[in-house]
Amino acid sequence: MNKHKLLALLREVAAGRMDVDRAAEALRHLPYEEVGIARLDHHRALRKGFPEVIFCEGKTPSQAAQIFFSLMQAGEPVLATRADHDIYRAVRRVVPRARYHARARCITLGRLATAGGGPVLILSAGTADLPVAEEAEISTRIMGHGVTSVHDVGVAGLHRLLAHHKLLETCRVVIAVAGMEGALPSVVAGLTPCLVIAVPTSVGYGAGYRGLAALLTMLNSCAPVIGVVNIDNGYGAAALAAAIIRSGEEN
Amino acid sequence: MNKHKLLALLREVAAGRMDVDRAAEALRHLPYEEVGIARLDHHRALRKGFPEVIFCEGKTPSQAAQIFFSLMQAGEPVLATRADHDIYRAVRRVVPRARYHARARCITLGRLATAGGGPVLILSAGTADLPVAEEAEISTRIMGHGVTSVHDVGVAGLHRLLAHHKLLETCRVVIAVAGMEGALPSVVAGLTPCLVIAVPTSVGYGAGYRGLAALLTMLNSCAPVIGVVNIDNGYGAAALAAAIIRSGEEN
Amino acid sequence: MNKHKLLALLREVAAGRMDVDRAAEALRHLPYEEVGIARLDHHRALRKGFPEVIFCEGKTPSQAAQIFFSLMQAGEPVLATRADHDIYRAVRRVVPRARYHARARCITLGRLATAGGGPVLILSAGTADLPVAEEAEISTRIMGHGVTSVHDVGVAGLHRLLAHHKLLETCRVVIAVAGMEGALPSVVAGLTPCLVIAVPTSVGYGAGYRGLAALLTMLNSCAPVIGVVNIDNGYGAAALAAAIIRSGEEN
Amino acid sequence: MNKHKLLALLREVAAGRMDVDRAAEALRHLPYEEVGIARLDHHRALRKGFPEVIFCEGKTPSQAAQIFFSLMQAGEPVLATRADHDIYRAVRRVVPRARYHARARCITLGRLATAGGGPVLILSAGTADLPVAEEAEISTRIMGHGVTSVHDVGVAGLHRLLAHHKLLETCRVVIAVAGMEGALPSVVAGLTPCLVIAVPTSVGYGAGYRGLAALLTMLNSCAPVIGVVNIDNGYGAAALAAAIIRSGEEN
Amino acid sequence: MNKHKLLALLREVAAGRMDVDRAAEALRHLPYEEVGIARLDHHRALRKGFPEVIFCEGKTPSQAAQIFFSLMQAGEPVLATRADHDIYRAVRRVVPRARYHARARCITLGRLATAGGGPVLILSAGTADLPVAEEAEISTRIMGHGVTSVHDVGVAGLHRLLAHHKLLETCRVVIAVAGMEGALPSVVAGLTPCLVIAVPTSVGYGAGYRGLAALLTMLNSCAPVIGVVNIDNGYGAAALAAAIIRSGEEN
Amino acid sequence: MNKHKLLALLREVAAGRMDVDRAAEALRHLPYEEVGIARLDHHRALRKGFPEVIFCEGKTPSQAAQIFFSLMQAGEPVLATRADHDIYRAVRRVVPRARYHARARCITLGRLATAGGGPVLILSAGTADLPVAEEAEISTRIMGHGVTSVHDVGVAGLHRLLAHHKLLETCRVVIAVAGMEGALPSVVAGLTPCLVIAVPTSVGYGAGYRGLAALLTMLNSCAPVIGVVNIDNGYGAAALAAAIIRSGEEN
Amino acid sequence: MNKHKLLALLREVAAGRMDVDRAAEALRHLPYEEVGIARLDHHRALRKGFPEVIFCEGKTPSQAAQIFFSLMQAGEPVLATRADHDIYRAVRRVVPRARYHARARCITLGRLATAGGGPVLILSAGTADLPVAEEAEISTRIMGHGVTSVHDVGVAGLHRLLAHHKLLETCRVVIAVAGMEGALPSVVAGLTPCLVIAVPTSVGYGAGYRGLAALLTMLNSCAPVIGVVNIDNGYGAAALAAAIIRSGEEN
Amino acid sequence: MNKHKLLALLREVAAGRMDVDRAAEALRHLPYEEVGIARLDHHRALRKGFPEVIFCEGKTPSQAAQIFFSLMQAGEPVLATRADHDIYRAVRRVVPRARYHARARCITLGRLATAGGGPVLILSAGTADLPVAEEAEISTRIMGHGVTSVHDVGVAGLHRLLAHHKLLETCRVVIAVAGMEGALPSVVAGLTPCLVIAVPTSVGYGAGYRGLAALLTMLNSCAPVIGVVNIDNGYGAAALAAAIIRSGEEN
Repeated sequence: MNKHKLLALLREVAAGRMDVDRAAEALRHLPYEEVGIARLDHHRALRKGFPEVIFCEGKTPSQAAQIFFSLMQAGEPVLATRADHDIYRAVRRVVPRARYHARARCITLGRLATAGGGPVLILSAGTADLPVAEEAEISTRIMGHGVTSVHDVGVAGLHRLLAHHKLLETCRVVIAVAGMEGALPSVVAGLTPCLVIAVPTSVGYGAGYRGLAALLTMLNSCAPVIGVVNIDNGYGAAALAAAIIRSGEEN
Repeated sequence: MNKHKLLALLREVAAGRMDVDRAAEALRHLPYEEVGIARLDHHRALRKGFPEVIFCEGKTPSQAAQIFFSLMQAGEPVLATRADHDIYRAVRRVVPRARYHARARCITLGRLATAGGGPVLILSAGTADLPVAEEAEISTRIMGHGVTSVHDVGVAGLHRLLAHHKLLETCRVVIAVAGMEGALPSVVAGLTPCLVIAVPTSVGYGAGYRGLAALLTMLNSCAPVIGVVNIDNGYGAAALAAAIIRSGEEN
Repeated sequence: MNKHKLLALLREVAAGRMDVDRAAEALRHLPYEEVGIARLDHHRALRKGFPEVIFCEGKTPSQAAQIFFSLMQAGEPVLATRADHDIYRAVRRVVPRARYHARARCITLGRLATAGGGPVLILSAGTADLPVAEEAEISTRIMGHGVTSVHDVGVAGLHRLLAHHKLLETCRVVIAVAGMEGALPSVVAGLTPCLVIAVPTSVGYGAGYRGLAALLTMLNSCAPVIGVVNIDNGYGAAALAAAIIRSGEEN
Repeated sequence: MNKHKLLALLREVAAGRMDVDRAAEALRHLPYEEVGIARLDHHRALRKGFPEVIFCEGKTPSQAAQIFFSLMQAGEPVLATRADHDIYRAVRRVVPRARYHARARCITLGRLATAGGGPVLILSAGTADLPVAEEAEISTRIMGHGVTSVHDVGVAGLHRLLAHHKLLETCRVVIAVAGMEGALPSVVAGLTPCLVIAVPTSVGYGAGYRGLAALLTMLNSCAPVIGVVNIDNGYGAAALAAAIIRSGEEN
Repeated sequence: MNKHKLLALLREVAAGRMDVDRAAEALRHLPYEEVGIARLDHHRALRKGFPEVIFCEGKTPSQAAQIFFSLMQAGEPVLATRADHDIYRAVRRVVPRARYHARARCITLGRLATAGGGPVLILSAGTADLPVAEEAEISTRIMGHGVTSVHDVGVAGLHRLLAHHKLLETCRVVIAVAGMEGALPSVVAGLTPCLVIAVPTSVGYGAGYRGLAALLTMLNSCAPVIGVVNIDNGYGAAALAAAIIRSGEEN
Repeated sequence: MNKHKLLALLREVAAGRMDVDRAAEALRHLPYEEVGIARLDHHRALRKGFPEVIFCEGKTPSQAAQIFFSLMQAGEPVLATRADHDIYRAVRRVVPRARYHARARCITLGRLATAGGGPVLILSAGTADLPVAEEAEISTRIMGHGVTSVHDVGVAGLHRLLAHHKLLETCRVVIAVAGMEGALPSVVAGLTPCLVIAVPTSVGYGAGYRGLAALLTMLNSCAPVIGVVNIDNGYGAAALAAAIIRSGEEN
Repeated sequence: MNKHKLLALLREVAAGRMDVDRAAEALRHLPYEEVGIARLDHHRALRKGFPEVIFCEGKTPSQAAQIFFSLMQAGEPVLATRADHDIYRAVRRVVPRARYHARARCITLGRLATAGGGPVLILSAGTADLPVAEEAEISTRIMGHGVTSVHDVGVAGLHRLLAHHKLLETCRVVIAVAGMEGALPSVVAGLTPCLVIAVPTSVGYGAGYRGLAALLTMLNSCAPVIGVVNIDNGYGAAALAAAIIRSGEEN
Repeated sequence: MNKHKLLALLREVAAGRMDVDRAAEALRHLPYEEVGIARLDHHRALRKGFPEVIFCEGKTPSQAAQIFFSLMQAGEPVLATRADHDIYRAVRRVVPRARYHARARCITLGRLATAGGGPVLILSAGTADLPVAEEAEISTRIMGHGVTSVHDVGVAGLHRLLAHHKLLETCRVVIAVAGMEGALPSVVAGLTPCLVIAVPTSVGYGAGYRGLAALLTMLNSCAPVIGVVNIDNGYGAAALAAAIIRSGEEN
């Protein structure tokens, strides 16, 4: 479409139906997204494999459902995060095939990559970190990447983690999810050669300050290959993991 | 060596010179690093391409020089970060070939990958962010990856960044270094399909709180493919970028 | 009234019915607002175009309704902010002509200036910032200034903003409303010659710290023509914008 | 120049020397600043009256002097802020006409508007706030706007401020500079109809937290027409004041 | 009672029925409150005029009622603060004469000193500060000191305060209650010779941080005769005011 | 079992049925917990006297009940903390003998050591600190150590504490639980030779910041023998006390 | 003078030389300080017994000396706080009789009330709190009130404080100065009937956060008669104490 | 002496030379420290084995030397912490036998228990944590307890720690010293049955916030037997460890 507009204009010039000055003026005022940046945006849609995600927090069920429906029309897959049951019910009414992942609080439309294998290993420190870990898992799988999840491997029971050392050696990216003191990513990065994406969670109490303690721990890790995302941001970790995998595939 | 010990013990058992119970006991007490974890560590040395880095802050010149010398004996390349001139002078005395990068405050030994090309694009927002950006550059190059650096492209002069859109489309990883309000990584991630590693710097004054404002901005970015490292941690960003590139090469 | 009192006293002196010393004493004890400061206050009412605004948070519906009624008697227009449905119901009972703007949580009495034109451009970064953006819009319009609002132009979709560059060139004041990382005002101020009033919102999660991240971003902007107001303070931004416009009209 | 390039290309098309498809492709890759955004930037230079300012903190004397010299070549006026004596000496060597304002820590080149009159009133709370107030004054004057400065009118001596009520009524913008508890802007905005730009300073001790107390006070003011800038940001306040005045002149 | 025990013991010694060493040993182990410190405590009851106050927050209605009943038995007056309706209902059941002050959330038993006169002047900045101001008022009156309260005299409407300058000159202690930016105590202390007790309230929003902004303002006041109490601590301010008045009466 | 596996493998080697190299390889890949660390873990179960505790916050009743049941099968005693009535009801359905301690919000299975004697003295500052103090008491008793609890001995009524000086001299560990200003542990450590474990509680309001004030007080105590645990962490204090006692018994 | 102007004007009216309207207008514009508020200020000078104090921090020696000289001309006593030796040398040059109190960092001119008796008792917790305690002592004495100082009575050595119980019973105001955990004011207020002014100091390390821990402790004290001043604000405490004593003397 | 006074008084009563009432009165006024609390203090000296420690920070060399000399006269051992070379020189002049431990910044007088064995194991995470770890070591040894120190065993090189598992099983108390992310105590407590005293250090940069990150990590550890002390408080950890060991010896 953009290109069509541009070509049409240039054809007018080529045909002598529009003089050069008027064309220059028109080009100067072409909305930017029609020349270049939208192309980048288009590239993003193509390369990132995922056009947009619905963050449901602070949206009404009907708003969320309406956006879900629009994105569905633009093509599968569709992902909504931070969705409660009310939002799911509203989505299901307009998109009956939509699927709800209650613990991950995600709604998906489209095929999920397999769980129990693949380039991404998701580790979570405690049971209470599960919702964030599962948001990361569902998000990774809807983006097309297989995931293995190992839960309850916090540093207070490190040997459980060590028992999975094979996984640590064969995966490409580890997403380490931890609240409380948030030491899991440091320890994983110290023990393995894997790339680690650290997700602090708001799990804890008292001086955990809803994830601040875990966040600071992760930012200050003395193990160097850790990238940190926002507190409870399971989806962000998945998007980063997917981008890392894609970046390798493209080269 | 480890393996030798283990084989020796097993040969004793095979030869009947050591009974099974004593062997079991001995094996239970084998230092862990001799069986498995050290192997992982060895893997890390092999795959990460960089055994250890000297963080000079809080070390005396002679301590830093001594560690530099030991690492040199283990083989090139060697990297020391946060090194002032005094430390460099001490290092040069024992390792005359060591090279000092004053603005980056780094000392290197070994070949640097080319600047002005390669998979890593380093962007910095302002002149004052240069030391951190250059620490990232030197660190990336000593790890063997080519780097293109573009400086002074903060969001107050966004069009300078947009002029480099080709770079944004062809690199594999962007390291975006910014102090003050720290908005550069968000804007880059919004405009391009690149993976972004965000490095907040302590540049700024007043309510910048020595990098806190930039750090929070980066963690809260609404653009999803951003991994954040500690304030002023140029080396950490480089190590993460290198790990991302390697992770692609291995698969 | 004040003036009357003062004139009466002076007439007594002029008529010789009160001696000079007693008059001096009486004048020394005249309540201050009756001599000078109330005049300033009166000036404010005249020049600011808006005598007082009801901040409903923490008021009971009947308290809010009662104040609304009193202000109505002092003359239109009347504005109440942070008003929920219960407060509106109570106000409507005593001022049936009052009008409720649900998403902006405002109650107004009096004519609103047009939306879709005028000297004020309101930009908001995401859907969740709408309530604050609309409080700013309604507040600006009840103060008599036309407003154009453009929503969902956060830095993750900057090209949408760039498509509106004409608006950025022709408006007099931009109110930029953003939560999460709050980078919108910086970017706007970097791209356009407009004056920018920055409103951080409490939208976000985790390390957004209910608007703190956005607030710090805005205060630390490297683009210089930004004035910041309190988190979620849409009304304050509108009042500041109105004062800027009036300040030009008076000179 | 940009326009020339564009016209040349279009003429090629008009002349049939370049076909439409190749032209479309070339246009897609024209650096953005050459079509639209640079124009905006050009506008900014024209309208803001001040192309760029040198923030000297974190720059070496020679770096600062070099930038000062370049800006001088682009035309007067030139302003450098946060400049110490060493920086001034370096600047003076290359630009002998440059003038140093020691207390304001500013270096200027070009005519200053008058002090002691004009649309901007600068108030400061205490003697220790003077450097920031004077940075604001010099910055405003080099941008071409007259300034009246009244110092030492903090809320502990409010009557001194009240004695200047005429100024409060006739100026167009007040810049209120205060450290410690930072109450001055609130009080000014409560007493006068003026627009107030609030500048917190890092003056104080103990629980003043280097300007945080003053900053929070200003953001939370119950008087509505206050725009806040970063701690100690005298220049930012001046730039905002200048933009407000210009915005009136243009309409 | 304590004294009885002590006298009994000494009489045993005097009568030769207990030898000196055993008596010395017994005296060494007499619980401390029976010899000296309880006396201090008794003094406190006598001089402070108020034995103990029930802070109801976090207590069940029956717990609060039970403590109220016990204190009543020790003699009037009795004061309970932070009491909701449920707690009042429980108290009324066991102490029917108890009186509820809904807005102050206080329950009292005993005569209140007059409102509308007396040595204590309570000023509050806004309507939302009323509950804290009234807790201070009821607390002061139950301690036997007359109070004049003037509300809604925040710094945005300073002339209303100035109209009451007579009160400021004749009272002995001012309790200044303010949320938002909390500038009232500074301004009062700057204008009057009164002793000021500053009570920050949690009234406000956004960067008010539930009273922190007001608290810091008050601690950093450049006016010197201000003592600050905890956020929302109306009772504490009253107790301090009462102690100041008593301290004068005793000398 | 682990040992069995290991012995089996070694017997294969001894019997010549497996060659040395294959055995070495197999041993290198034995999960770690089967060789050494699990043994440590087993030691912990033996020595710490308490295998694992259920932190119920953030768990559903059925999850909590299921874990309680599993732990019961591993043997008594069992402890669940932060359990509300719903969780207790769910637990009771599957473990009818489980006992609920409502104020301590704990569920226990197994014999409790006596209250009113023993090596641990629990002091709490105010009534509102009781839930945390009782969590510490129940936790200590289920771990087999006798406890004496003295409540309401905050520093505002220090003489009540001094009356119990005998207890302070004879106990082995004091657990001091305090919210508000949290000064109790400092004072206790200043008066007695006891080891003090300090537990800040979230009791308080305003600038107590949900336990932060108490936490900082305890960390900064000038009395040296104080170990601090997280805010409201009664169980953690008990576990630390129990470890201290056990550490003495083992030597 | 003010009065003269006013009388002159009224005489003009009485003589018929000025009509009533012009007089009313003139009166409306009389500078405020000439009618009422300056009188309040004058009252303050009379009643507070101390016109102004020089806070030397951030002033050059010559600035400080100049202000000292001016205040001396207005009459003794004169007080300068936070003065280092350089400032003293500059002051001594112009006011040779000025006296330096090195540890208190104060310069005084005029008679000091006796140390070792009087209505104010200053307690300090540790040796490092001495400078603040002595600033409070010198300030109190120059204001005319006798002081007894007892140092090194922190809560880690509470019995030393208790040995002075007589002082606690006979003084009128206690100024309690403490850094580290800052528990001294709480404990004093719990043991005695005295009014306590709490001064947190920046003494301590680590999580003391330069006085924040002590400040929070003091604000959250459960003992009610404590007024808190800013960190290290010895002078403020003295001014408050003096105001309390004067408030009693006047009634 | 105390006892003598008391016996003398009782003898007067027994002899009939003092009547019972006067004796009771006299007893009520006996300084507290002479009856009971001083005895406790005496106990502390006896049982804690260490009367007092000199914290040199903020003391002049001569002050420190003077206190050192006094304590020496009360008997060995003597310990001074945070002592620089100047302080040591001053101490050595008056106490020539005093010994300086430069890296630990401690001065000791008296026999040190052996290093390389004993009940206390000190672990430190990185080279930069050494000064704090060595302050802990020297402090423990001067209190009479043997210490084994293992340095550089941070979680980034966990296998080095695991190699020392024998030490972890045989020591009685671990002091774990760590800056940066501070994860070491968590990991140690997860792997071993030892009691852990956690010492956060101010080592690190950026978002480490001078030990805050490490402190929060340690307080939020999910491993339960950890007691935390203030940032950089090596001595405090040693005192706590010594108290734990003594507490076992006494029972």
